Amino acid sequence: MSKITAGIIIIGDEILSGRTLDSNSNFIAKKLIESGIQLNEIKIIRDDREVIISNVLEFHKKYSYVFTTGGIGPTHDDITSESIAIAFHQKYCFNKKAYKILEDYYPKGEFNESRKKMAKMPEFAKLIFNPLTAAPGFKIKNVYVLPGVPNIMQKMFIRLLDELVKGSPKKTATININLYESSIALDLEKIQNNYPECSIGSYPYYNYISKSGGVNIVISSWTLESIDPIIKKIEEMISLLGGKSSIV
Amino acid sequence: MSKITAGIIIIGDEILSGRTLDSNSNFIAKKLIESGIQLNEIKIIRDDREVIISNVLEFHKKYSYVFTTGGIGPTHDDITSESIAIAFHQKYCFNKKAYKILEDYYPKGEFNESRKKMAKMPEFAKLIFNPLTAAPGFKIKNVYVLPGVPNIMQKMFIRLLDELVKGSPKKTATININLYESSIALDLEKIQNNYPECSIGSYPYYNYISKSGGVNIVISSWTLESIDPIIKKIEEMISLLGGKSSIV
Repeated sequence: MSKITAGIIIIGDEILSGRTLDSNSNFIAKKLIESGIQLNEIKIIRDDREVIISNVLEFHKKYSYVFTTGGIGPTHDDITSESIAIAFHQKYCFNKKAYKILEDYYPKGEFNESRKKMAKMPEFAKLIFNPLTAAPGFKIKNVYVLPGVPNIMQKMFIRLLDELVKGSPKKTATININLYESSIALDLEKIQNNYPECSIGSYPYYNYISKSGGVNIVISSWTLESIDPIIKKIEEMISLLGGKSSIV
Repeated sequence: MSKITAGIIIIGDEILSGRTLDSNSNFIAKKLIESGIQLNEIKIIRDDREVIISNVLEFHKKYSYVFTTGGIGPTHDDITSESIAIAFHQKYCFNKKAYKILEDYYPKGEFNESRKKMAKMPEFAKLIFNPLTAAPGFKIKNVYVLPGVPNIMQKMFIRLLDELVKGSPKKTATININLYESSIALDLEKIQNNYPECSIGSYPYYNYISKSGGVNIVISSWTLESIDPIIKKIEEMISLLGGKSSIV
């Protein structure tokens, strides 16, 4: 089976200005890896029509799945839906189902022009339901279009996850050790070279309060039956170097 | 004066796997906007030679400044420096100054092969000093290459910021209001249309505990002398709609 891949596009000037720390991509990343879908790239781009169109088309061609967050609300700066309609040469118009959902959701007389805008999307979009605030996201081709507000996005993402084709989950383990990264680097590289189907990452940390540090070694593989032999090799190596290791 | 622009490339499998939440781009974004430098794009990419090369070259051509974080440590998975040397057709070799800094930093006998790797970089790189853990970053052309560990990256970024050409800081204000986004959308759009040199963003929020919400309206402009008239217009609009507003 060929690998199932994904890309995420975070749309929003508020991220690029530093006003908001993006946490949506981290949430989606975790869910994808659990589902055996390989996330290859995340892009954070401006609320700009041309920029949205070119990036969505690029990712649409490159990856099995594309997820966008942001820019589907009721105000003038929410231009994601319209841009994506243009990208796929579809009419940007009211979706009858979405219109009905929103009409039912708002008290009589409160379904105003701006709220109606949230029912506009590319003509052949398929809705992604929103259990919190009604306004749906949508899917078009392999592109899933979600809101930027994290708690709403998360609830919607968990629902749409059901319909994605999954791969075998990535096998992964983290070994925490109490040695410096530079004292393990050569031996670790040898182990990496012996197991090309596995990726071995080395992440040092240092705590300035306790004045102690170490390294987290992350072993992961999409294809190996088991990563246990590699874990064992690394544990033996650490022990030979006089260090301590534990699986975390 | 033409606008000074920037792009950030975050390099690291640990971000794409969801293991680590990237906060480096948010830190750099805030510093850039204060310095009048317009951040146009953030990319998060894999520890992959070809991917690093193509993205660095793309950003190098597109933006005044490029900042990368991650992948310059001592282990086999740290391939940023070598990849960037290849990108710019320069030899990947020991930098004498960097070698000396590291040799002086480590106790005698502890400057091992892996640590020496941190002195290797593109032949004509200029060092970025690291006041915490000695291992320097570097600059090549308009690309600033920084480590991924946030506290080290931050200290180094603050130092290099001195040498960047600054623009006029972006004028910005945030107005917090107690109305729904959809009830202000039409009037806000009219104000936006009257002030094309200013960007007006609308960011709704909802607190599920206090069951109350509102909108932050963010007004910003790189070019206007003052954004005060726009703030006033928005405050008047909110008041006419029966809402409350305050500058936050």
